[in-house]
Amino acid sequence: MLEMFTEPRGVAVIGASTSPEKLGYQVLHNIVQYGYAGAIYPVNPTAEEILGLRAYPSVLQTPDPVDLAVVLVPARIVPGVLDECGRRGLKGAVVISAGFREVGREGRALEQQLIDTARQYGMRVVGPNVLGIIDTVSKLNASFAAGMPRRGHIAFMSQSGALCTSVLDLALGQGIGFSRFYSIGNKADINELDLLQAWAEDPESNVVVGYLEGIADGPRFMQVARNITRRKPFVAIKSGTTSAGSRAVSSHTGTLAGSEKAYDAAFRQVGIVRAGSVQDLFDYAQAFARLPVPESDAVAIVTNAGGPGIMASDAVERAGLRLASLTPEIQQHLRAALPHAASVANPIDVLGDAPADRYALGIEGVLSDPNVGMVIVVLTPQTSTQIPETARVLGELARRYRKPTFAVFMGDQAIRPALSILAEHSVPNYQVPERAVAAMAAMWQHRQWLNTPPLAVETLDVDRKAVREILDGLRQDRRITAGDAEARGILEAYGIPLPKSRLARNADEAVAAAEAIGFPVVLKIASPDILHKTDIGGVKLNLTTASDVRDAFDLMMYRATRHMPEATIWGCQVQQMVKGGKEVIIGINRDPQFGPLLMFGLGGVYVEALKDVTFRVAPIDRREAHEMLGEIRAYSLLRGVRGERPSDLEGITDVLVRISELVSDFPEIVELDINPLLVFPAGQGVLGLDMRLALQA
Amino acid sequence: MLEMFTEPRGVAVIGASTSPEKLGYQVLHNIVQYGYAGAIYPVNPTAEEILGLRAYPSVLQTPDPVDLAVVLVPARIVPGVLDECGRRGLKGAVVISAGFREVGREGRALEQQLIDTARQYGMRVVGPNVLGIIDTVSKLNASFAAGMPRRGHIAFMSQSGALCTSVLDLALGQGIGFSRFYSIGNKADINELDLLQAWAEDPESNVVVGYLEGIADGPRFMQVARNITRRKPFVAIKSGTTSAGSRAVSSHTGTLAGSEKAYDAAFRQVGIVRAGSVQDLFDYAQAFARLPVPESDAVAIVTNAGGPGIMASDAVERAGLRLASLTPEIQQHLRAALPHAASVANPIDVLGDAPADRYALGIEGVLSDPNVGMVIVVLTPQTSTQIPETARVLGELARRYRKPTFAVFMGDQAIRPALSILAEHSVPNYQVPERAVAAMAAMWQHRQWLNTPPLAVETLDVDRKAVREILDGLRQDRRITAGDAEARGILEAYGIPLPKSRLARNADEAVAAAEAIGFPVVLKIASPDILHKTDIGGVKLNLTTASDVRDAFDLMMYRATRHMPEATIWGCQVQQMVKGGKEVIIGINRDPQFGPLLMFGLGGVYVEALKDVTFRVAPIDRREAHEMLGEIRAYSLLRGVRGERPSDLEGITDVLVRISELVSDFPEIVELDINPLLVFPAGQGVLGLDMRLALQA
Repeated sequence: MLEMFTEPRGVAVIGASTSPEKLGYQVLHNIVQYGYAGAIYPVNPTAEEILGLRAYPSVLQTPDPVDLAVVLVPARIVPGVLDECGRRGLKGAVVISAGFREVGREGRALEQQLIDTARQYGMRVVGPNVLGIIDTVSKLNASFAAGMPRRGHIAFMSQSGALCTSVLDLALGQGIGFSRFYSIGNKADINELDLLQAWAEDPESNVVVGYLEGIADGPRFMQVARNITRRKPFVAIKSGTTSAGSRAVSSHTGTLAGSEKAYDAAFRQVGIVRAGSVQDLFDYAQAFARLPVPESDAVAIVTNAGGPGIMASDAVERAGLRLASLTPEIQQHLRAALPHAASVANPIDVLGDAPADRYALGIEGVLSDPNVGMVIVVLTPQTSTQIPETARVLGELARRYRKPTFAVFMGDQAIRPALSILAEHSVPNYQVPERAVAAMAAMWQHRQWLNTPPLAVETLDVDRKAVREILDGLRQDRRITAGDAEARGILEAYGIPLPKSRLARNADEAVAAAEAIGFPVVLKIASPDILHKTDIGGVKLNLTTASDVRDAFDLMMYRATRHMPEATIWGCQVQQMVKGGKEVIIGINRDPQFGPLLMFGLGGVYVEALKDVTFRVAPIDRREAHEMLGEIRAYSLLRGVRGERPSDLEGITDVLVRISELVSDFPEIVELDINPLLVFPAGQGVLGLDMRLALQA
Repeated sequence: MLEMFTEPRGVAVIGASTSPEKLGYQVLHNIVQYGYAGAIYPVNPTAEEILGLRAYPSVLQTPDPVDLAVVLVPARIVPGVLDECGRRGLKGAVVISAGFREVGREGRALEQQLIDTARQYGMRVVGPNVLGIIDTVSKLNASFAAGMPRRGHIAFMSQSGALCTSVLDLALGQGIGFSRFYSIGNKADINELDLLQAWAEDPESNVVVGYLEGIADGPRFMQVARNITRRKPFVAIKSGTTSAGSRAVSSHTGTLAGSEKAYDAAFRQVGIVRAGSVQDLFDYAQAFARLPVPESDAVAIVTNAGGPGIMASDAVERAGLRLASLTPEIQQHLRAALPHAASVANPIDVLGDAPADRYALGIEGVLSDPNVGMVIVVLTPQTSTQIPETARVLGELARRYRKPTFAVFMGDQAIRPALSILAEHSVPNYQVPERAVAAMAAMWQHRQWLNTPPLAVETLDVDRKAVREILDGLRQDRRITAGDAEARGILEAYGIPLPKSRLARNADEAVAAAEAIGFPVVLKIASPDILHKTDIGGVKLNLTTASDVRDAFDLMMYRATRHMPEATIWGCQVQQMVKGGKEVIIGINRDPQFGPLLMFGLGGVYVEALKDVTFRVAPIDRREAHEMLGEIRAYSLLRGVRGERPSDLEGITDVLVRISELVSDFPEIVELDINPLLVFPAGQGVLGLDMRLALQA
């Protein structure tokens, strides 16, 4: 896929220049300089020759073969130039020129012309407004970058061209290699989805790395990402997500949700490893590009210094990985082989005077131990430390045992002789133990993702027609919030267990309802306008007699009309009084990017204060629903603490899956809270005690 | 202080060697090579001359002046050598030799001899088992380090000698300067406290940086640290604290406490900035060494690239700092001065083609804005970026405006020309925005500490004598847990509000007690052996009649003897039934390093599941008690949410201060839980509903 960019047989540089300070010269120079083997055609209306190559007045005059144009002319003539490219039969264009959507209305129109022209001829376009693209496999550097990265196995894309210049410069300095390096700018045509699809199939790329600012189509992005992450790791920075969203929300779920939560959930659900900075991004990418994915999270540490060994152990524990317990055989072996003062419990301390062969004993010991999944080798440059020799034995052993092995050679000048040796042997090196451990945690996250079964959303046997009718009724009445009765109807149609309940329009009806349901009962104000009923005394519990019910009804009517004279009041809901159970909340909120965002957490009136909640983009399957339960702090309460019986976890899971299906089936439901959902002991089910539901305005 | 190390008039190198591969040569070479101006005397039993200096067979023969010995002889003869040093009148020794406490019993005895000898002559000793000391002020490099760091304002100490070699090598590579650089090894004499006291007074050191593994004396450390942090920042790594402590604990507080929490609390209470890695340590240290402490946490960002600007904004928000809102005047000024496409809302985007003078406009704009406390200048190396020129204008403006200003010049080769210019102008540079922001957050933490009033522990009017008597009684009975009655007595003596309660040994007494207290009452099993009463049905609430009390008493006796036949049962506590209020927990646990660790958090049976707690080392003052309230997630519940009345925060604060005093007065109290402490609305106080208290075994 996208061969017009990866393997063009000829490239036309439209806007090539004879002045070395111009981009049109620099781009051509990069193409020529770094060994691209295809045909190169400078296109310039006046020049005869540039950089020793014959120049052409127009792309129309260029000879065969020519597949790709790199365009550097002013924005206003770009559409015309693309039209020529199309007529000449080119298959793709990299539009470096700026001055399109990013500069306002006029630019946006130009960008539309550009797209229309390209579509007309079936040409694919990278850009506009980009640094260019670099392909180390075909040695094509079609960019104005100040250098060419080494060939490697990292495929990189960035929505920020300026970031590309920094990343490239860092990569040149640190010897990081890339397979493909794409600046995707305004994404008029080629966007992150196209690249992800192409790179999923790309044998030259072991890991895909991206800097993302916005995502065009959340659900589609999830689908494509889910596919690539099954085949290779995808590490991404998503920036600009911390600020709270702007839409006014009234539900608990809406208050607690937001763009950051949605991205976090979506990325986790599709197996993307999220990086917090460019430093993390490349720390992780280098590990993924060079090392096999770990089979276990048990980490062994080999060090010639106690202090950094402890720091590595601390980092392992903080990252949620485990310190490996070595097998007794290996411990005995190390005890016999290493000096008396050495520590043979993990971390293995080979002592400050360790030469390379003593390191080798320790490293081979832990690599051969079946209890060990990953290894860190820490080296401080002490007087008798054999730095390049240690790098060599480490590299050879790491290659032999095929377990992910990380070097932490701590220093600068002193350890420099080791760096190229480590790189040759594909051992990534980190300046401090904490960065190596962060990369280990990223790899372990990817392993867990690979072990996760594929998403298997069920289609439940529910009454969609009933919900359709209720929602249509609400729309006819131009109501955007459902009352208790409608909300109950919708939830019941999807099999959510609810307590017995009836709407009473007056006190007599309330008493009759209570007698039918059976005492004790609960009375709740029924109004489409009152969202938080307890705030205005709109809930009365444990009414045991007919006269209690009558009094409560009248009082509630009086108070509601006094507090909220504008509110429509339908009466009261008379409900079965339910006792016991733990309170959880299940809700949804619509995210502008990803759609229905499902929330689960500790419920009750304190849900916003305690914020003990977790999120998923719907639809989810039963496995993900289960996973959600385990993610809240209060999970231990649900599992049962201090000899308490465990709660009905299956009941919660079932409601999560049903709500997921409901909101996927009916996109017009934009907010929904079931709070509290009462959870009884295992086998005794759950009951949705109170709920609110809002529709698209 | 410690002038024998910082300004010795002469240095004897005992164990100096003629072989370049020996430490005894390398240390002498370092002293000679780096410009130490005092007298240098190699001491060697056979050599005539080393490195062109006359050698002496013993320190006794060295001429005046000689203040300091650097000792490299084998461990077993070190005490004898120190005796000679003492007789010769030396004031200090740096014992580089290893083979002491770290190798077991024999070494420990040698180390004791070493200390005894030094004490006899009033000599101070650094070591043994160290890399040595480096003083860039007197240019004395009395170490076997492979280089000499630049002179700077960072004073560094490390308990790990090997870490010193790495840090030094990193510092050499990155041009980090130090004033003092001490490896303190076994800390036989000079320890972190001595250095902290000396460095507090040291005009050459702007910031003190330490790698700590263990602390000799927690309370003394806190006292010394509190003093230094008022004068200059103290940044520390404390490693080896994640693993849970080993002592078996039965209280909630004990379960939730631990060494990590104690260090965290202690460091925060004395204003130490904690670093998570060596990278963080020097990221922070360089900011502190070079920049003024910020006056506000409002951050302005100036950038030539959108992406990194967004990443910087994200980092600011995540770190709990604020993005500054520029004054309208400055915004107008920037709008007029910068190109149309530039963004003049924070982050200020001066655009990708910004030359140095456009950067200058943006930087001067934000630096002159009174709404701005700190500034980040992000630069990506684009085609027309003037890298060294931008560094220069940045440096000059930063110096002129005296606001902490951080550079993030993102790249490697391309930005190298800027590095020395930034360093000259004392502007720290960071590779990615996230690292600069972490350093900003560390500086802001220090500013907040400087703004904190000094600790002011009150002496409360409490009945110490009553507590002394109760504790003596328990000790006589050889009991290590107090029963309800004793615990109540102790808490009442310290003014902790408790519900009315009486011990009843039989059902008749229980009924009489209930009648005296007034119905309804609560019955609780009274036993020194039953810690979690609810687990065995040992609590019965809301008993409204005499016969209910009688039934409950008998049932409880029956059940307790059946479930725990070994337990001593004193009867039941009859207690006033209390309704309403929110549940919090206040407890203490003894930390082996720091003593009484006070906990506050959301209470009730779920305290361990929700872990919504915070810690302080006692004693605390009222301000710190207040601060604790604000640190739990559930604080918003206590402050009042959704129109609820605020809880009695003063009541909680008062109990915290009283418990702090109690456990400080009586160190034999090793565990104490008040759970729940019921908190009523403001003005209506608190009540300690249930409690447990354990004494030193």
